[in-house]
Amino acid sequence: MSSSPSVITCKAAVAWGAGQPLVIEEVEVSPPQPQEIRIKVVATSLCGSDVAAWESQPIFPRIFGHEAAGIVESVGEGVTEFKEGDHVLTLFVGECKRCRHCTSNKSNMCRTLGLERSGLMHSDRKTRFSIRGNPVYHYCAVSSFSEYTVVHSGCAAKVSPKAPLEKICILSCGVAAGLGAAWNVADVSKGSNVAIFGLGTVGLSVAQGAKLRGASQVIGVDINPEKGEKAKDFGVDMYLNPKDYDEPIHEVIKRITDGGADYSFECAGDTRATTTALQSCCDGWGLTVTLGVPKAKPEITAHYGLLLTGRTLRGSMYGGWKPKSDIPSLVDKYMNKEIRVDEFVTHNLQLEDINKAFELMREGKCLRCVLHMPR
Amino acid sequence: MSSSPSVITCKAAVAWGAGQPLVIEEVEVSPPQPQEIRIKVVATSLCGSDVAAWESQPIFPRIFGHEAAGIVESVGEGVTEFKEGDHVLTLFVGECKRCRHCTSNKSNMCRTLGLERSGLMHSDRKTRFSIRGNPVYHYCAVSSFSEYTVVHSGCAAKVSPKAPLEKICILSCGVAAGLGAAWNVADVSKGSNVAIFGLGTVGLSVAQGAKLRGASQVIGVDINPEKGEKAKDFGVDMYLNPKDYDEPIHEVIKRITDGGADYSFECAGDTRATTTALQSCCDGWGLTVTLGVPKAKPEITAHYGLLLTGRTLRGSMYGGWKPKSDIPSLVDKYMNKEIRVDEFVTHNLQLEDINKAFELMREGKCLRCVLHMPR
Repeated sequence: MSSSPSVITCKAAVAWGAGQPLVIEEVEVSPPQPQEIRIKVVATSLCGSDVAAWESQPIFPRIFGHEAAGIVESVGEGVTEFKEGDHVLTLFVGECKRCRHCTSNKSNMCRTLGLERSGLMHSDRKTRFSIRGNPVYHYCAVSSFSEYTVVHSGCAAKVSPKAPLEKICILSCGVAAGLGAAWNVADVSKGSNVAIFGLGTVGLSVAQGAKLRGASQVIGVDINPEKGEKAKDFGVDMYLNPKDYDEPIHEVIKRITDGGADYSFECAGDTRATTTALQSCCDGWGLTVTLGVPKAKPEITAHYGLLLTGRTLRGSMYGGWKPKSDIPSLVDKYMNKEIRVDEFVTHNLQLEDINKAFELMREGKCLRCVLHMPR
Repeated sequence: MSSSPSVITCKAAVAWGAGQPLVIEEVEVSPPQPQEIRIKVVATSLCGSDVAAWESQPIFPRIFGHEAAGIVESVGEGVTEFKEGDHVLTLFVGECKRCRHCTSNKSNMCRTLGLERSGLMHSDRKTRFSIRGNPVYHYCAVSSFSEYTVVHSGCAAKVSPKAPLEKICILSCGVAAGLGAAWNVADVSKGSNVAIFGLGTVGLSVAQGAKLRGASQVIGVDINPEKGEKAKDFGVDMYLNPKDYDEPIHEVIKRITDGGADYSFECAGDTRATTTALQSCCDGWGLTVTLGVPKAKPEITAHYGLLLTGRTLRGSMYGGWKPKSDIPSLVDKYMNKEIRVDEFVTHNLQLEDINKAFELMREGKCLRCVLHMPR
């Protein structure tokens, strides 16, 4: 047995209030509890949902970040799967491997280690972070905007030590979510038409996934022309900006595709775009997959006739991957050059520049900003 | 060649205004046009959507009725598939067998002979009925509340002459819609939990279909306790009346099913029930199939989180059957006693008593009223 891990004091970016600039603080990180591991974060990227939660959720002080790669620093009681030095990706939804969802091949919504919205850890409803003894809350039970963090061992996936952590961190959420939506949830077929709403990392990963499946036409929709420019590099064949058209954009898509897309994807985090995505699909077999997490207007509305004429609306969480079981295979695909990852990393910043990353994301000027920890 | 068919004058139930009692009139039925057939209707049943359209659509005078069985009286130019004397079911959505929907195995939404809402025939945008030369409009291009009607040959299916027309008429819409929703659209699996909203003929046909697939628990929801009583005969294991509970009915269903049904079906024609059906499904793989045609509030609303956590919302038109290709097989199943049909026929009335049938349907006092033509 190794000696018991002790509290680590390290730097973390702490959010003190909704939309307020983050502050680099010294935080205490408690030892991993039973079935948990403590990770030295090496690289963590900023995802749109970090920004959305920071703007809209009332849980503070809090450490955001859920797309991360690092190295196991210590393990808690009962952990046999990981050891110090293992390379891992964090998982914002975990796998207990025992619940009826984990044991079903139809679900990736682990009932024990599901999306944790409370700011606490799954097991004991407490935090592993504090500042001078006062709790600092988690985000998705990952909280990677810290030099060290503690996660449940079911919320980490061991990956090849050869893979560059500063790149593969983005496989722990955005790129996996998009690829999986195209492959697992929609099961995009060869020769199909695809419409994607929102051309951030998730949307462009859908585009990449659709193209790898042989989609013949990928239409990308975004109101930000800069996004449209980049999109061509990721498989988007045609970029549409709704601002360029007098008629509703779904009418444009229906015209281009002779009746509607076979598949459409909402990746903008806007429920109105989900409605438009459904309207952009063809009748008979059109499938709309909704991935985005909206900041406002949580209700999706859809005319019943859109469904009755043969459309399907389906949600995609984590791209339908069983995260712990499946995400390592994406790292392997990256290492085998079967999928593109590097190109999504438009900015590399130090943790201390995290507010710059938030600004770039809010302004739509980045795909992924990877934050590097102090050496 | 037989001699050209001439105009037939016969009795039909004509609707002259929204919600106004129908009037038995002498109508002229023109000969079948190219690719059309004229049918002597033998039996036709009243479906909820006839009533909904009569109450809400502004197309008058009109002959409703779209669930019917009869005998071919004459055929139009170019018809080779049917001949005088053939027994047929009418189809409110047809098959041209040539369009991209008919040639795809994923759709039953024929682009040429789809649901016709205009009150006119598909081919020439005219009517085949008149009263003293003035047009009388169609319903779904079927209009079976008439001794004779004209339909496109793609909107009729030849069936075994041994099958009793006064029973199998209900296979041309309601029973087929429900069975197909369970079998084709949801693909209900053995041992699953099913929740059905609305226990009319469609909902009870879903129940029958689910049970035949081996569903372990079928929960039926209806605010009409008389419907609940009958439901047990069709496979509903547990009847729930939302009026009996203080808590929302989806919470009751989630408790009974330990997290939510595997499948839920909206058969009430109420978009609010679609939302409840989605809320009643389990996360991970819950599938809600919406079949009903609402009279009001055409927008379905659903919190995005219901979808993101693994639920799917899908529409079902005509039970996913390719109507012309598949419906005859249901008649065969009935003749082989593999499915129950007779039990849905709670009332037999003469055409002249059609207003009584409308009354029974509006008051929820029947499953199917079969209307018999004058001999």
